[in-house]
This record gives sequence, C-alpha cells and structure tokens, in this order.
Amino acid sequence: MEEENEKRRVRIGMVGGGAIARAHVVGYRSVPLLHGLDSVEPVFSVVADATEELASQAATKLGFQSHTPNWRTLASSQDVDLVDIVAPTFLHSEVAIDAAEHGKDILCEKPMAASSGDARKMYDAAMRAGVVNAMGFNYRRLPAVLQAKKLIDEGALGKILQFRTSFMEDWGANPEMPFTWRYVSKLAGGGAVADLGSHVIDIARFLIGDLKSVCAAQDTFIRERELVEDPSKSGKVDVDDYTCALVWFESGVPGRIETSWSSVGRKVFLDFEVNGAEGSLYFNFERPNELQFYSARDPKDRQGHRTIIMGPQHPYGASFSFPATGSGAGFQDSLNNEIYEVLNAVVSSSKMKPDFYDGWKVARAVEAIQESSRSQKWVDV
Amino acid sequence: MEEENEKRRVRIGMVGGGAIARAHVVGYRSVPLLHGLDSVEPVFSVVADATEELASQAATKLGFQSHTPNWRTLASSQDVDLVDIVAPTFLHSEVAIDAAEHGKDILCEKPMAASSGDARKMYDAAMRAGVVNAMGFNYRRLPAVLQAKKLIDEGALGKILQFRTSFMEDWGANPEMPFTWRYVSKLAGGGAVADLGSHVIDIARFLIGDLKSVCAAQDTFIRERELVEDPSKSGKVDVDDYTCALVWFESGVPGRIETSWSSVGRKVFLDFEVNGAEGSLYFNFERPNELQFYSARDPKDRQGHRTIIMGPQHPYGASFSFPATGSGAGFQDSLNNEIYEVLNAVVSSSKMKPDFYDGWKVARAVEAIQESSRSQKWVDV
Amino acid sequence: MEEENEKRRVRIGMVGGGAIARAHVVGYRSVPLLHGLDSVEPVFSVVADATEELASQAATKLGFQSHTPNWRTLASSQDVDLVDIVAPTFLHSEVAIDAAEHGKDILCEKPMAASSGDARKMYDAAMRAGVVNAMGFNYRRLPAVLQAKKLIDEGALGKILQFRTSFMEDWGANPEMPFTWRYVSKLAGGGAVADLGSHVIDIARFLIGDLKSVCAAQDTFIRERELVEDPSKSGKVDVDDYTCALVWFESGVPGRIETSWSSVGRKVFLDFEVNGAEGSLYFNFERPNELQFYSARDPKDRQGHRTIIMGPQHPYGASFSFPATGSGAGFQDSLNNEIYEVLNAVVSSSKMKPDFYDGWKVARAVEAIQESSRSQKWVDV
Amino acid sequence: MEEENEKRRVRIGMVGGGAIARAHVVGYRSVPLLHGLDSVEPVFSVVADATEELASQAATKLGFQSHTPNWRTLASSQDVDLVDIVAPTFLHSEVAIDAAEHGKDILCEKPMAASSGDARKMYDAAMRAGVVNAMGFNYRRLPAVLQAKKLIDEGALGKILQFRTSFMEDWGANPEMPFTWRYVSKLAGGGAVADLGSHVIDIARFLIGDLKSVCAAQDTFIRERELVEDPSKSGKVDVDDYTCALVWFESGVPGRIETSWSSVGRKVFLDFEVNGAEGSLYFNFERPNELQFYSARDPKDRQGHRTIIMGPQHPYGASFSFPATGSGAGFQDSLNNEIYEVLNAVVSSSKMKPDFYDGWKVARAVEAIQESSRSQKWVDV
Repeated sequence: MEEENEKRRVRIGMVGGGAIARAHVVGYRSVPLLHGLDSVEPVFSVVADATEELASQAATKLGFQSHTPNWRTLASSQDVDLVDIVAPTFLHSEVAIDAAEHGKDILCEKPMAASSGDARKMYDAAMRAGVVNAMGFNYRRLPAVLQAKKLIDEGALGKILQFRTSFMEDWGANPEMPFTWRYVSKLAGGGAVADLGSHVIDIARFLIGDLKSVCAAQDTFIRERELVEDPSKSGKVDVDDYTCALVWFESGVPGRIETSWSSVGRKVFLDFEVNGAEGSLYFNFERPNELQFYSARDPKDRQGHRTIIMGPQHPYGASFSFPATGSGAGFQDSLNNEIYEVLNAVVSSSKMKPDFYDGWKVARAVEAIQESSRSQKWVDV
Repeated sequence: MEEENEKRRVRIGMVGGGAIARAHVVGYRSVPLLHGLDSVEPVFSVVADATEELASQAATKLGFQSHTPNWRTLASSQDVDLVDIVAPTFLHSEVAIDAAEHGKDILCEKPMAASSGDARKMYDAAMRAGVVNAMGFNYRRLPAVLQAKKLIDEGALGKILQFRTSFMEDWGANPEMPFTWRYVSKLAGGGAVADLGSHVIDIARFLIGDLKSVCAAQDTFIRERELVEDPSKSGKVDVDDYTCALVWFESGVPGRIETSWSSVGRKVFLDFEVNGAEGSLYFNFERPNELQFYSARDPKDRQGHRTIIMGPQHPYGASFSFPATGSGAGFQDSLNNEIYEVLNAVVSSSKMKPDFYDGWKVARAVEAIQESSRSQKWVDV
Repeated sequence: MEEENEKRRVRIGMVGGGAIARAHVVGYRSVPLLHGLDSVEPVFSVVADATEELASQAATKLGFQSHTPNWRTLASSQDVDLVDIVAPTFLHSEVAIDAAEHGKDILCEKPMAASSGDARKMYDAAMRAGVVNAMGFNYRRLPAVLQAKKLIDEGALGKILQFRTSFMEDWGANPEMPFTWRYVSKLAGGGAVADLGSHVIDIARFLIGDLKSVCAAQDTFIRERELVEDPSKSGKVDVDDYTCALVWFESGVPGRIETSWSSVGRKVFLDFEVNGAEGSLYFNFERPNELQFYSARDPKDRQGHRTIIMGPQHPYGASFSFPATGSGAGFQDSLNNEIYEVLNAVVSSSKMKPDFYDGWKVARAVEAIQESSRSQKWVDV
Repeated sequence: MEEENEKRRVRIGMVGGGAIARAHVVGYRSVPLLHGLDSVEPVFSVVADATEELASQAATKLGFQSHTPNWRTLASSQDVDLVDIVAPTFLHSEVAIDAAEHGKDILCEKPMAASSGDARKMYDAAMRAGVVNAMGFNYRRLPAVLQAKKLIDEGALGKILQFRTSFMEDWGANPEMPFTWRYVSKLAGGGAVADLGSHVIDIARFLIGDLKSVCAAQDTFIRERELVEDPSKSGKVDVDDYTCALVWFESGVPGRIETSWSSVGRKVFLDFEVNGAEGSLYFNFERPNELQFYSARDPKDRQGHRTIIMGPQHPYGASFSFPATGSGAGFQDSLNNEIYEVLNAVVSSSKMKPDFYDGWKVARAVEAIQESSRSQKWVDV
C-alpha cells in the first residue's frame, strides 16, 4: 500500500449538504479513476450545514470525517485544503472571502453571489490571496460544448455573425412550489436569470466573448407563494420567472439570451445556436450527447446539420465511465470534468477557468439585464 | 356540360409572373377539386408583368388568356374579378388601391407594402370600396398552426404566459447573391424583418393577439452587393440581415420575435413556442406536418411533448391531396388553403381573415421594430 | 391562342374515381406548369367507375368530359391516349391487358395485380403492344429517395453492406374499419405486404437491386371485420396485418423488410437505412423533406448524420411548387414527379421506369414472402 | 466513526481490469450514496488479471487492496463476498462455477458464456450453491426501459401485438480493428449477436416474454483481421458482423431482432418498439433519457408520440446524480442501478433479476439464431 502514501491528498471542506453536495461527492469519488488522476486522493474532511443535526446527517450520508454547524470553522481548519461552496447563494460571498483570507482554494457553485458587488469582493479577495478560485459553471465542461468551442476556434464556421441561447425549465410553473430564499432578490440575486441565466451567460462568454450591452424584459407569473412553515401565509416573489435579453457582444455580434423556470414541458432545455458566415452549431442539453454542426463548405447537395454524438474522439471523451461513443455525458459527466480541473489546479497550484473573474462578469451581466428590465433602456455591461 | 355553365367563374387578374405567381396558379387549379369547391371555376384572365415580353412569357407559361405590360389595365378590365398581387413590395399599394377603387376583390402577397403608411392607405381604400381584401399570410393556413390555435382557444394550455417565434433562412448569407430591390429599404420596407418577420408577426397576432410594444436590435452582415447589370459596381444594402425584438402583447404576455435570412443551415426555420400555465406548443415549418403539444394535465410519469402528425382529423385535413395522416402539408398546401378562403370570400362576398387590417398592423409592427432598432428604445406599436 | 394548338394533347382515360384519382388529377393539372412541360396538355377525357351514378359523380368532381360505368369502353375509345388505372387491385390486370391490346399507354397504380401471374400477363401484354407501361411506385420519385440513389451510385457510401426498410401505418389497428376487398387475398393480392410492402420492395430494388431469396413471418391481428352492408355479419380476413421478411439481394447484401398497417402511432412510417463500408443513409417519409447521410470520410471529431433538407439543388428540386429549400415534397410532389415522367414518356414514346417489369418483380417478391410465411422456409424470388 | 463499524461490508473480488471494470468500480463507489444504501460499504478487496503486471496495475488504478494473476484464488479467498466477472466471455463459466462452488455471490457481465451449454452449467452451479447470481444486462435498468415495462404492465398499450428491437454500433466496420478473441466463435460465443444481441434479447424477454422460435440470417463483412502481435499475419473471423432474426414469442407476438457492430454511423443505437392494440412505445439508447409513448386513447386530434424525459418521477429517478428531470441516465446510471440491485441482493441474501436463468435463456436464443442461420430453417428456442 505504499503507493497510497505517495498520493497528494486534497482535503475537502464542504459548505452545504443538499442535492448538489451529493453530486459533488460522487464527482470527487469518481474523478481520480475516470480521469487517470491516480496521484490525487480527495479526502472528505469536514462538512458544514445550517444546524448541528443537518450537518451530522450530511456527514453520515456523504461520508465526511467531521461536521460543523458553523461554516467559519472550515476556513480556519488545518484539515481543509479546498473549500467547496454548495450553499445558498446569499452565503457565497462571506464564505468565499473568509476562505480566501485563510488561504484556502475555493470551488464556488453558481450563481456566484447575490449581487455583482459581492461577486467583485470575492474576486478581489481571491486575487489578494492567490488561491484557486473556481466557478461551478459545469455546462461548459460538456464534451459537446467544448467541441463547439473547438470548431469555432478552428474557424469551421467562418466569421461569427449571430448567437442565441436559452435555458428553460418548468418546475417554477408549479404554483404549489413553496416560498424559499430563491424567490427573494436580495438572497438569490435574481430568479431564472440568476439561477439558469448565469449558466448560459457563461456559455455565451465562453463561446463568443464579453457582452457589451443588453436590453431586457422580465416577468413574474406567480407573485405569491405559500410559506413552508405556515401555508396559510404567503411570501412575495420579487424575482423573475422569465427573462429575455437582446445582447451585443464586444466583438460586434448580436444575439439574445432567454430563460425561464416556468416554461411548461421544458426540463433542461439549455440550448444555443452559433451562426457563422460558413457554418453553424446547435446544442440542446435535453440531448446532451449531441452537437449539431452545419458546414456550408460541404458539397451543395449534401449540406445538412450533422448530429455528432460525443465519444472518445471528443473533449474529455476518454473520461466517460464507459469509453464508447454515445455512452453518456449528462449532468454528472460535466460535473466530473469540472472537479477534475479543480483538483488538478489545486495540486498544481495553477489557474483554471472559469474563475471568480468570470463569475463576477456573469453577475455583472445579470445585474445589467435586471437594470435594463427596470429602466426599459439599453444598459452597458 | 350543363353543370359547367352553372359554375361561378372567378376571373383572375394577376400582377406578377414569377415563382410565387406559379405557386398561386397551381393553387387555383387544385383548390376547387381538393376543397370540394365544385361550383367555382377560376379563370386565368390576364397577367401583367414589367415588360411586354415578360408578360407574354408569363401568359404562355401560366396559362393566362391575355397579358399586359401595364398593370393599370387590370383594374379597369371587365374581365377581372380578383386582382392577385404577386409583384415586388413597392408596387403593392398603388396596384391595390387602384384595384379597390375599381371595385375588384384583392389578394395581396406579403409584406403588404413598403411602409405602414402605404399599408394604411390600402386598408382605407378597401374599406371604402367594400371589396374582399385578403393578405397572403399563408403559414397561418397550415393545419398544424390552426390546430395550435384551436388548442389555445380550447384552453388546453391554460393561461398563456410566454410566446416566442423565429423565421430563419440562409440564402442571404451568400455574398454572391446580387443587389436587388429587396436590399433597398424604401422599396422592400425592410430586410428579413419585412420579408420573413411579417409572416411570424402575423402568426404572433393570430395566436396571441395584438402587440403593445417592441424593443429591437438589427444588424446587416453584408453591406454591399454586386449589381446584376454591372458586377464591377455594387449597391448599398440598407436593410437588416438580422432582427431580434422583445415584445409585450396587449394581453400582458411577454415574448420575442427573431428573424434572419443569413442563418447558415436554416432553410425555412419558421418556429414558434407558446407556453401556458398548463401546457405548451411548439411548431417548426422545417417539419411542417408536426405540432408538438405538451400537457401538464397528463399523468406525471407520462408527460412529454406529443408529436402530432397532421391528418384528416385536423383543420383543412380533408383537403390534403391524399387524405391520409402524414401525407403532406407543405408550402403549397398552406397556399391552397389560403386560395380556398379567398375564392370562397369572393363568391360569397364575405369577409375573410387575415385582411388588409391585419396586413397594416403587421406593417406597423415592422416599422416599430425598425424605429426601436434606430432609437435603441422601446416603441409602442 | 395559337400556342395552345401546337400543344400535344394527352387524353386521359381514368379507371376509378376515388381519393387516389383525385390526387392524380391534381397532378395532371399541376405538372405541365411545375415541370415546365409547356408543350403538353393533359385532357380529362373519360372516367370509368363501378356504376353510372359513381362515374357521373366522378366526372363532375374531377372534371372529365365524359364518363362510363364500363371500363372496357375506355380501351376502345378514340379519345383516350393514356389509361390511368386507379381501380381496386383485382381489376388491374384485366384493364391493363385490354388497354395494351388496344395500343393505349398505361399508368397502373400499385400493387400491380392480385397475383404475380396476373402481373406477368400484364407485362407480357405491354411488351407485345410496345406501349408505355408505368407503375405507380411514387415514393421513389421523392427528391430525398433520388438523392439517396445518387449518393449510392456515386460511391459516397463505399461498398453496400446492409439494407433495411419498413412501412408502418396504423389505420388497420382500428377494429371498426369495415370489411372490404382489401381484406381478401384473392382480390387484393395480400394485406399490408401488398398494399404497403410493394412500395418498399420497389425502393429496395431501386436502391440495392434484385432480391434473391426471402424468409418471412406474417400475422393477422383482427381476423373478422363487419360487413358494410350488414354490420351484424362479418367477413373473414385472410391477409396479413403484419409482415417481416429477411432478404438476401442478388448482390449478396442482407437485409430486412417489415410492414404493418396496424402499428399504432405510425402514420406513413416508410423508412429505409442503407449501410455501406464508408457511409450510411436513413430516410423516413414521416419527415419527407429530409435525408440523413453519414460519411465516415468526414474528420473523426465531426462525423454525424447530416439532416439534408431537400431543395432546388436536389432531384426534381426545381419543380417544387415554391422553389426554396424545405418548401415541400410530400405525397403530392412525389406523384407529380411520377406523372411528369409518364407524360414525358407518352409524348416521346420512350420507356420509363418503374415499369410493368418492375411491378411484376415486386409482385413476385410479395408472393415469395407469402409462400415463405406459409411454408416457414426460405423461398427464392 | 461508530456508524462505519455498523456498516455491512461487501468485499469485492473482481476478475478483469479493463474499461468495464473501471465502470463497475465507479458504480460501487457511487451507489451507496446515490441510492441511499447507507448501511452498505463496498470494499475493493482483490482484483485478478491475466498477468502479475496487469493485475498490479489494475489494483493501483482501480484501488483494490490486493491483486492476483490467478482468478482461482478469488473464489477461495476469505476476503471476498462477491465475485464480479468482467473478464473475456470464454472465462465466465469456469470462474462463475468455481465461485459458486465456494459459496460466493456472483455478478457476471454479458454475454454469459461462450455457449448455452456453459451457461446452463453456470446456472446449475448457482442453483446448487444458492448464491446470488446476477447477470449484467444493464440496459433494462434504464429508467426509460423500466418505464416502458411499467406502461406495458399497466395495460397502457392494450394487447401487445408487435415487437422489434435493434442494437447497432459501428466500430466493427473499421477494417483496421485487429484480431482478438471477440472474432472467434468458440471464445466469444458469437459476434454482434452475442455481444450486442444478448442485450436486446434480454430486453425482449423482459418486456414481452420468452421466445418460442427464431429464423435468422447472419453475415460477416470483414473475414480476416490483422494479428496484434504480427500485423503481417491475419486471423480468420468466424463470427457475425450482422444478424437479423424473425422471432415468435411464446405469447404469440411476432417480432424481429437485428444487430450489427458494422452499421456505419450508429453508435449505441439500441432501440425497441412495442405496438399494442391501443398504444405504442419507442426507445433508442442514443437518446437515453427519452421514452416515446403513443396512446390511441388520447383525443383524436391530439394523438402523437410523447417524448417523455426521464426524471425523479420515473423508476430509479431519485438516484440520478442530480435529481432533476433530464439530468442524466446514460450508461453509468444503468450500471449504477444494476450494482444497487446486486449489493441489495448480497446484503439481504435475496434473489434478483436478471439472473443466471435469464442469462442462460438469452444464450440459448443466441445459439438458436446461429443454428437457424446455418440451417436456414426456423429453430425452436
């Protein structure tokens, strides 16, 4: 067992113990094997949750060595290398800044913070501390999205002319979904635009570049929701159920970004289309293994969107749990790829993208969209 | 042959002899049979085109009894009941007003006119004359679009919450496409937004209702094109290759309208989605026989978008050339259904929709979109 | 009107006045215009139907100059050039042989005859007479099917290795569909295998070549159906609702042919797949405008099935009613293309394919499939 | 850490260290957490591979405590509860029988054995020993496949009338793929029919029931392949690249089973269709999250195949790594669900399906298909 001793341990302090925490733990357990990161051993050191009881349950369930109801103990702990923030949005900035100040590497779930101001403070703190500062925009880790990026960068589309993206889900259309912090602007930083929109703004920036200006409309379909603790009372929703924004990119490309968690029938309809002068791409996460690619350079009588199924020949393709074309690439695969990059950055003390700079830029775009919706004017990002 | 004598003849005067004229003639020839309009006999009376030679060729090819290089002779002709305007956009208003003033019934292709002012004058002239005034928004005549309307009206979606529509083609992405009137704003009334956008604005109004306000961005990707007559010279394009507009409907529904004739790979990508509180619809003309319908009233473990294939059980279904589900419903079918309604209105002197009022409202929306793009502000329609 | 006089008239005698007759008439009316066959004028001379009353109604509805309850008068008529057989299957051979013996050109709907013996007699009669003898296998006239043929012939797939085809519909699953000649083997020549299977056997022969041997299983799900004339009585169904056949082609390619008119949910599910050593094709008539093409010669990271949408750049593409990619190509378009070939053959006295030889070979394959199902053995075609 | 002590340890002895071994290990690591199997702790006890070196590498990579080049030591080891057989097919029977005789629980990958005789011996040995005997037919563990089963069992389709299934991949079309045991009948038990066909035969039995008789055709497209050790020499392929079989189920349902690993463009095209008198189902693993369901009980104008996206409301839905509709369900999810059932059976000493009986029945069907292909006759299963 001497090999074990030579492994670099990455001791994880996790803030939050819910569904997304579970998915992160599955990732840490799988990644060294799937990605051939043989020399790294994630250690599940400590988990924090809101109460002693919740934290204890999370530790048992997720397999952490210890637990705490006070996330502040993580940052100062000697047993933590990486603080993984999977807590509600309104906690992100305080936790991340504290972690940075204690020199911990950080992985932060999206959206980054409840305001772009908070996001900026997180970024500044990470810069000062020089720690790894990873943002959990996992969808850009999908093989199909990376293959899209590769085709764009290789010039397979020619000059980029148009971009559009959507992220539609439908659980928000259910009026029986109770009131939570997600429906409070100052806690969540926005509704669909923050929760879902931040993902596709990240993808927009990843594929096309920085946004220059936006003009948006937002709507809220269900304005009151029952309190969990007392269903006879209701809370006032002050975030968007629906957002659509016109955008101009710095590069001069026009586009649009659309999101709603109240589009009945759409489950994880995260799609995008890129039109270039000589080719186009289309992706939809409801069919996560597929990238549509059209090339105007094909002979005229055989041009058509190619449905490319992801496999070992594509980015991260060797890391599918079963290395055969079409065998996977759903949510967990994107998360595994993200965690691989994080672990890699931690053990090599290197930078990685997307980082807190990207998270801050996305937060700023979200805020510009909200400002535009309020003022009914174009807003610079 | 006595039955023949009893038939009501509808004598057609057609202005224009190009591709769309051909499709109209196919429609007139097929409709009485396909739609059981046994008592009506379209007569191909006279066709006008730009020159004597073109008009003569058109008459021979399309089977008209006579021809003229001067469209003004049509309106005053004793041999014309219905003026069918399939000429370039900039001619529509003059021709239509002349026809109305001579008491002729009118079918006008879209877009209605080169400006909403002209469209309004056409509408006023038709109202004064009391003639049939039909607009050629054929796509709302597709069985799938009418089935969508039926489901909305029946309440199958519950309260309507969101709407989005696109019309994307790609021939405009070809830089070798020469300069024509289509690239001149004052002749065409706009670029993609007038040519393609007018169709989906019509569908938006048909399905959801009147637009209240718009905010739009437009772009032109190819700003100069070679002149047909002298390829060493080029004309300046002053219309949009791309338009995206946020919209609010009068009913309070938010939405978006997007169009481009330069989206490489998209051929007749006219799509729309309607989200209601309890159901959704999706249609795409690239698969013209299909309507997607999702009902949140289905049992939870078997909810999904239904791909409904159009057949005899759907609107105009009995009029497919072969009355079996899935046997058709492309462009010509929608046009046949339109021509059926026009012939029906002519012989019964009844009103029909969409009419010049609708055409004017669409023209006004196009203009509001263009104003918004220029002023970078929201504009009331 | 002097041009009219110069036109070559093709006087049609039609046997049958039902739904498919209507579609043929629409075709004759549209084809000269759509296909630029300016010098040909189809004349609707005489229509025959089972009774004087039916024939009279058909003449009125379809616009024939005269009518008859006795199809034998057509063959001897001086006013008929082309006999178009759209009657029930059991009449085909008698009508066609009579027409051939009178020197008439012939278009015969599928399936060719109620037995391969009858089909052979029709073929022999046409050969002796030297008349045009066209088979109504319209689906091979679809642009997508012809494009498939073109790609195979050009070697785009490399050596052909596998073939499979299906034709599934679902109206036969309805137990309330009454008893007709279609359910009687000696009148219809078979059930789904004759009605639908004959189409895909034709496509199999068209794309891959002659069949060598078959081994099949057939089943009948609904064995009795109510008589139209007396619903208290029922007729015994002795044809297949379902057929699946293994096949070997003469070229050594293996494959399978599957058909049913009782596959709930399938409407016009006529599909085929061709696998070559270096590429593959897939087509499904439920999406009639699309051909899927996969090339193993594309770069490894961008291989995928291309969805090619049919347009002017494809076979018969200039003859769409509106000449834009994606504007059509359903059942009527395939029929129009067929009728174009027939009219062309008639006026030029040239041969055309598919002809009675092809019809006979298909009939022989249908019979071999039935023999195999009975004997439970492989049968040479 | 007292909870740890109370956990039931399941000590795994794995035979084989390749790609599928890796996927199994990922499964064992994830399942207790994802499936809430909190009280079970898989222990990676010992791994066997062909040589000391390979076994050592596998242990390091996969995280096993010890390793051996001799699989026989596993069965007799005191440190092994469950023998997981992920070795080449020809080893399965010897390993499994040895394991059973030593009282070990067993999970065996498919295909079960190189002959149905061997499979039968494995089954008998397991029965005698009374050990858990699980077969690795993972695809029936997909939520969509289980939802299909549920709909059939609930009668949502009415009486079952037809069944068809395919499993097409394309790596075998590559002539540069070298010669291995997979191309030798006596080692692999067959080609595509054993490797891929066994999966869909399992699904056929799962959904419809036992097969009664089969009639099949097989072909081999590439008959010689280069030896890995000496590319100047080649080995003779004596297994099928392509198999198509007609089948009758015991219940009287007809159907067909088709498989090839040489269908260019098809990656993991495992599909099936079930047609009932009142509804139909379609599934294709290339879109693993989706089940298509058509109900003839829906109102006539809104019948269509529903694309049901899998989520928490479906079988195993709560065990997705992220519990949101559409977030996953690829190969690894099906494997995780399988491993969950195996661990559950081991700790509760209960039976589970599919077991060695099912594996043997599938092996028998594979053999009947091969016999039929040779004899060109129908063969009883």
